This record gives sequence, structure tokens and C-alpha cells, in this order.
Amino acid sequence: MKVAGRAMRTIWLAADGRTVEIIDQTRLPHELAIVGLSNLDDAARAIRDMQVRGAPLIGATAAYGVALTMTEDPSDTGLDQAVEVLAATRPTAVNLRWALAEMRGHLGDLPPEQRFAASIVRAAAIAEEDVAINRAIGEHGLRLIEAAHRRKGGRGAVQILTHCNAGWLAAVDWGTALAPVYRAHDAGIPVHVWVDETRPRNQGASLTAWELGQHGVPHTVIVDNAGGHLMRRGQVDLCIVGTDRTTSAGDVANKIGTYLKALAAADNAVPFYVALPSPTIDWDLEDGSQIPIEQRDPREVTHIAGWTEAGERVEVRLTPADSPAANFAFDVTPARLVTGLITERGVCPASREGLLRLFPERRRRAA
Amino acid sequence: MKVAGRAMRTIWLAADGRTVEIIDQTRLPHELAIVGLSNLDDAARAIRDMQVRGAPLIGATAAYGVALTMTEDPSDTGLDQAVEVLAATRPTAVNLRWALAEMRGHLGDLPPEQRFAASIVRAAAIAEEDVAINRAIGEHGLRLIEAAHRRKGGRGAVQILTHCNAGWLAAVDWGTALAPVYRAHDAGIPVHVWVDETRPRNQGASLTAWELGQHGVPHTVIVDNAGGHLMRRGQVDLCIVGTDRTTSAGDVANKIGTYLKALAAADNAVPFYVALPSPTIDWDLEDGSQIPIEQRDPREVTHIAGWTEAGERVEVRLTPADSPAANFAFDVTPARLVTGLITERGVCPASREGLLRLFPERRRRAA
Repeated sequence: MKVAGRAMRTIWLAADGRTVEIIDQTRLPHELAIVGLSNLDDAARAIRDMQVRGAPLIGATAAYGVALTMTEDPSDTGLDQAVEVLAATRPTAVNLRWALAEMRGHLGDLPPEQRFAASIVRAAAIAEEDVAINRAIGEHGLRLIEAAHRRKGGRGAVQILTHCNAGWLAAVDWGTALAPVYRAHDAGIPVHVWVDETRPRNQGASLTAWELGQHGVPHTVIVDNAGGHLMRRGQVDLCIVGTDRTTSAGDVANKIGTYLKALAAADNAVPFYVALPSPTIDWDLEDGSQIPIEQRDPREVTHIAGWTEAGERVEVRLTPADSPAANFAFDVTPARLVTGLITERGVCPASREGLLRLFPERRRRAA
Repeated sequence: MKVAGRAMRTIWLAADGRTVEIIDQTRLPHELAIVGLSNLDDAARAIRDMQVRGAPLIGATAAYGVALTMTEDPSDTGLDQAVEVLAATRPTAVNLRWALAEMRGHLGDLPPEQRFAASIVRAAAIAEEDVAINRAIGEHGLRLIEAAHRRKGGRGAVQILTHCNAGWLAAVDWGTALAPVYRAHDAGIPVHVWVDETRPRNQGASLTAWELGQHGVPHTVIVDNAGGHLMRRGQVDLCIVGTDRTTSAGDVANKIGTYLKALAAADNAVPFYVALPSPTIDWDLEDGSQIPIEQRDPREVTHIAGWTEAGERVEVRLTPADSPAANFAFDVTPARLVTGLITERGVCPASREGLLRLFPERRRRAA
């Protein structure tokens, strides 16, 4: 997507052919800082310190991290060590482990002297696969936005509400929930996005607002409390959110607060869509209530960081020193509240039958 | 309620009999600062700068503000000017206007030399009336918490979720939504309160958490996004919130985000109660969707203030400089989502019939 008018991805190989460059997302939205990764330590630090975040981008960074190691030590020991170090950066990230297994399997059979070139090619392919999946999600989601525009008689912008950041900053390009928005905007359909700030980490207020603004998509930041009111007043035409994990029955685990927006959408007959790359479908799990919900550091609730007028990043405390806080990372939205799932193969009902119609190979496997 | 083990109200007449003292709530939760109000300007500033907030407390402060004027200029001109200046501090506050009319009517017929003493008595009476109403709300709400405790077989704390600050800091003492919590805690029923931080002004994280902590009530601060998840996981036994305005049919206007919690409560069969002093019932209005919703300064969304480790209050920006924000102050929860209204006369269904059973004099008036 565009940044200040120029196309940009979240990760790319620099002109020297052996440095990987990323956007330091911890400094957004106040500063666009490009960081060069030259070795394993750099890549591990970028993931651990959340300079990169979002499952697909973490996966791509890990793949490139393996490649960076292969310039220094392409031996089996070097490969094993790279996988081990990178796997430990975000222990719960499924995509990270998948990308590392992919690199390990691909490089393991090659002689060491071929590993660097092969690893760069494979890492780039992992990144391109993500871009292709998300571009396809964008195409299928575009049809939904076009339909909403027609339902409005072509009058006024299509009003879309999103939660958290499921945009290109969480992926390599396009994003998941925002891919349809970018496609619609680029196709000349007027859209306006209500951006939930998404406490406690504020990925909406900082990242989603920034990337929409850079690409020129009209948007307005709101507190997480406001979406229900907007839906009651008819100011939302559809909701599109991302997901971290979708069960085979269509239950959706996503950033905490997603469930509340799905309830409001159902109560006001606003379509509620979830955009997802099919690798995030957990075919072995049916019931979303079985998904363990990570509890994160309460400090994310009690403290918040922002920028002073002078441009300095400052963290401040919001709560009384003696008050405990709890920090649940995700919630589960039951399939009954989801109008449809937008995948790279098309849009389907949030149900086992709906998913199997798009992914029939899973039916054969189940039989 | 208690602060550091000692009983305290939000407003009181100092030992000198002519200074009114308040807690500067803008400095909570990090500092308990008592401010003396000596004249009309002091009182107007305290309301305007939100050192005092909450409808009942604003009303009481305005009443005392009139009294403070009577020491300096007890003439009709002085009285008129006091009413005019105080009415302009928070133009939309209904309670403020009611308290000023009350003082004006009470003092107007008295000779100037009797006005100071009479005004102190009347202001104190207004404060006491609020305390009596809220104590009664606490008594009726206590029965609901006792019932919840019995339903749990007396095992574990009764888990109560609240939104915003409808505690004693918003009133003179007790509060509305929190009055039942304090009564239950004082009666030895184990309670634990989930405190919504309540973006954008964070009255939950700063004020509710502080007052519960000072009184010794166990509580945990959560982001506004988390309540739905807690209810799905069975970790909330009942919700109690306050309200700014209730229609005669039981629709409830309250702090933005209340509606989302009511939806989650209904979806999980968690009782959802609204505590209110009967003066906030708008008997002339039936349909909550008619209530105009104030839009406040977007800066409350884009910026936030907190305290640094050094104890300095700092305001930081959370959003990209170019991203617009919208700030809706309230939402309306339809009566169908409200289990019951807790008033000073008892608990009733959120319906015209329910309210008229508690306030039959309104039935006669309507007939």
C-alpha cells in the first residue's frame, strides 16, 4: 500500500541483496523509521520487540531471519540455531513456527554453499504467498463493499467499522480485513472507515489510522465504546475484522472486544464479516470456547505510551497505583454472530458446511 | 465512603462555617487534593474545570456556590448574578439548573440579611437529600447482591461489572451504581468489581478504581473491550451501571459503551441493572432514540493524560496527527436489555408500568 504517495511493503530485501529492511512499527504513527536487519540477532530482536507484528509478517520476518543466518553460518548447526532462536521470540505464534519449519525443510537437504541463495528465494516466496492470499481476500471482500454501495443507491460513502489492525502493517501487503477496503478505495468506491482505537495496545488508533491515512482512505478514530452507538444510529454499513484463529465451525478468536462489536452488529442487522487467510483455520477445533485466551501483562492496561507535543515518546500511568488490572488478549465471537468469512477462495457462511464448500479437500481428509 | 480509613464526602462545609471544601477530582487517582471554595468564582471554576463532576455533586456545588455569594453580596443583584454565572458553567447539566432554581426560589423571598444562613442550610439540605436517595438505592441494590450471593451457594465473591463512575465521587456520598456495592461490602458479603476503564475520559480507571480501593472493595481494572469475554466465561454475576437520563419507558442514556455491555449481559443471561435517583427520569420522553447525544472534543480521543514515574501529569497524543476522531459522549440502552431499575423507592422492571408502580403519583398526573 502507499506511504506518502509511494508503494511500500512491511518487509523487503534491500538494494544490497543481503540486508532485510522493515518498518519499525513501535515508532508509528509518529515516525516512519526503516530498520535494516543484517543478522540473526537483528531479526530476533525485531520480532521480540514487536517492531514487526501480525502473524503473516512475523512469519516472513522469521523466514528472512533464517536467510540472514545463512550468510554467516550455512552449516546444519547454524540452521538449527537460527530456527531455535527465532522460535523462542514469540512462543505462541503459529505462523512463526510454520515459516521456520518451511525454511528448515527446504534448506535441510541442500549443501551449505547453496543455502543462502535458496533461503532468500524461499523467504521471498513466503512473502509473495502472503501478498497473493491477501490480494485475493481483497477481491472477494470488494464484492461485499460494492453490494453495500448498491444497497445505498450509490449515495454517500460505504461506512465500514473495523477493530484492531488487520491491515497491511500486520501482513506483507494489503492486510486481511483492510484488503477489501483498499481494493474498494482504489476502484473508486467511496468508503469511510470507523477505526476502533483497540485498547489496550491501541493498534487501531496508531496503526490502522496511520496506514489508512497514508493510503488516502477517509477514516475516523473512535473509542472502542462507540461502535454500538454508531450502529444503532445507522452509521455503519458493514463491519470487517481479522482473526487470529478460526475454528472449523466458524467461531472466531480475535482481538479482545471483537465479540462486543459482533453483538451490536447482530442487534442492528449490520453485516459482520471476518477476513482470514485459510492457514489460520484450525480444522481440528470445533468449539471456540475451547480456545485458551492468553492473559498479557497488566501494565498494558495500567500504563499507556504516547507522544508529547515535543515529539517525545512518554509512558504514563492511568490507574491508581494500588488497583490491580487484568489483560485478556482475545475473545471468541461465536459463528452465529458472523455473517460470513472472507477467505482467499471466496466468501462463505461461518459454519463447517460453509468452510468445507470452499475447502473441499478438507472434507475428503475428514472422511 | 472511606478514604484511607476515614469517612469522607465529596463536598462539605469547613470548620470555619463559611468555606466549602471539595476534592479536586482532576488530580485523582494520583493525589488527594482538598480545595477550599471561598467565593462565587471558586465555585464556578470548580464546576467548569471539572474538579467536581457527576450530576448530584454539580448540583450541590452550585447550591453552595450561591451560598458563598451571599456572604459578599446578599442583594437581589448578587443572587441573580450568582445563578447566572453558575448556570453557564455546564450548560447541559439538568441537575445544576434544578439546584439553582431551588436556591433562587428559597432565598428570593427572604430579606438579604437572612440569606447567607438560609442558603447554607438549604445547600446542606440539597446535599443531604442526595445522600438519602443514594443510601436508599444502596439498600435496594443490596438485596440483588444478596440474591446473587445465594445463587452462588455463598461460594466466592459476587462478581459485579460496572462502567464509568457512578460512585460516591459523582455524588455527595454512596453514589448510585456503587451504593449497593458499598452496602454489600460493609455488610460482609464478599464482592469483587470489574472496573471498565471507560474511554475516552477513563473515569473508571481513575475514579471508580480509586474510590473502591480507598474503601477497601476488591476490584480489577479492565479495558472496555474485556467485559464481553468475562461474561461469556461466566465471570460476571451481575452488571450495575448509572445513568444520566432514563425515559418513562425505561430506555437508559449513559456513558458511551454501556449499550455494548448490556448486549453482552443479555447474550449471556447476566442480570443488567441500572441505578438511578428518580429525578433523572424524564417522564415526558418515551423513546430513548430521541435523546440527543452530545459530541465532545475529539481531543479526548486523540490525547490522554496520565502520570509519569516522577509523579508529573503529562498529556500525550495517541493517534496520527492527520487522523480525525469523533467523540460521542453517551449511548442509549433500550429497556429490553435492562433487567431492572434500582431507584430510591425500590427495584422495578425497565418499563412504563414498572416505573409507574413505584411512582404512582406520575400515573395520576398522566391521567
